[in-house]
Amino acid sequence: MTTYGLLLFDGAEELDFVGPWEVFTVSALLRAEAGNTDRAVLIAERPGPVRCNKGMRVLPDHTFEDHPPLDLLLVPGGQGARTEVANPVLVEWIRETAAQAAWTTSVCTGALLLHEASPARGRRVATHHAFEDTLQARGDITVVRDARYVIDGQLATSQGVSAGIDLALWLTGRLHGRDHARAVRRYIQYEPAPPYLADEPLAD
Amino acid sequence: MTTYGLLLFDGAEELDFVGPWEVFTVSALLRAEAGNTDRAVLIAERPGPVRCNKGMRVLPDHTFEDHPPLDLLLVPGGQGARTEVANPVLVEWIRETAAQAAWTTSVCTGALLLHEASPARGRRVATHHAFEDTLQARGDITVVRDARYVIDGQLATSQGVSAGIDLALWLTGRLHGRDHARAVRRYIQYEPAPPYLADEPLAD
Repeated sequence: MTTYGLLLFDGAEELDFVGPWEVFTVSALLRAEAGNTDRAVLIAERPGPVRCNKGMRVLPDHTFEDHPPLDLLLVPGGQGARTEVANPVLVEWIRETAAQAAWTTSVCTGALLLHEASPARGRRVATHHAFEDTLQARGDITVVRDARYVIDGQLATSQGVSAGIDLALWLTGRLHGRDHARAVRRYIQYEPAPPYLADEPLAD
Repeated sequence: MTTYGLLLFDGAEELDFVGPWEVFTVSALLRAEAGNTDRAVLIAERPGPVRCNKGMRVLPDHTFEDHPPLDLLLVPGGQGARTEVANPVLVEWIRETAAQAAWTTSVCTGALLLHEASPARGRRVATHHAFEDTLQARGDITVVRDARYVIDGQLATSQGVSAGIDLALWLTGRLHGRDHARAVRRYIQYEPAPPYLADEPLAD
């Protein structure tokens, strides 16, 4: 049984956590067919709606006080990550929770919180392209600028927003096998085809 | 000013609407720098939390009774889409709202709802790979099985779950220019790198 804990806070970027949420919950659904009881939970400092960075309001499943033990902690980014570094309750919760989880992970500027809380100190990490200098300037960290996600021991960090989907898929493969990760990818039909890679004439 | 309306219902698949939500709200944010007041809103039949397909609870911004006029309607899929086809209130709302919007769009099995409500009748559409036969069997529709998203006039439909991100990016380019769509893509760092495409040796 694998329990995934996704941290929420005001100003968390929506896709940073919903991309991995979709990957982890689909993984749990597919593994349930074989009797496994994996689950993913959304955790916030307080009960009640969290207002995400682009305005979506989400209800957490648990607070810092009542969540189950986590095998994997995921910290999203967003404008909130840049302010929550000054929230000692949240930072301390990350520090303690990461110390007990097998995997500590972040998406986008969630890496700033992992640095503040210590799991990213002295490690190789990825973050959003616009915050690589900011994170590097904090010191005692190596920001990898040309990798979509970075695995350093049991610390796994990704670049901005959509990169969390790739990281989460990698993690499901590391935890439950690459054939399983491929089945998850097939379920969410993750065969990306970004538009406008070429500068072709537009239709009317 | 462009207003994007994303439909919510119990059992809506999380990434189906949050992927496009991220794209549309980032587009609005970037265009706000030039004085535009685009916005995206989440709309449900009733107020109060919607319980999505994988358990995430989201609060809608508006109900069917009090939402602003929409330029674009997006209908997600998920298990809920397969049951909501039997909800006459929701189906009628889609029919009326689509008739007044410039664009009607769906992700994943949201296409079933667009067929039930009529906008997809007689049209070319995409849906989740596991429901292509189901949708085709409803009749008076052409399911395109080998395209990630399908544009037929002002109807735009995508394959499963993650495909909504590509479709939403295409739409932002169609509405506001491809340079703008590329800026949105850069903001959400959508340079996908799905893992396990090769069968390489795994690390310990």
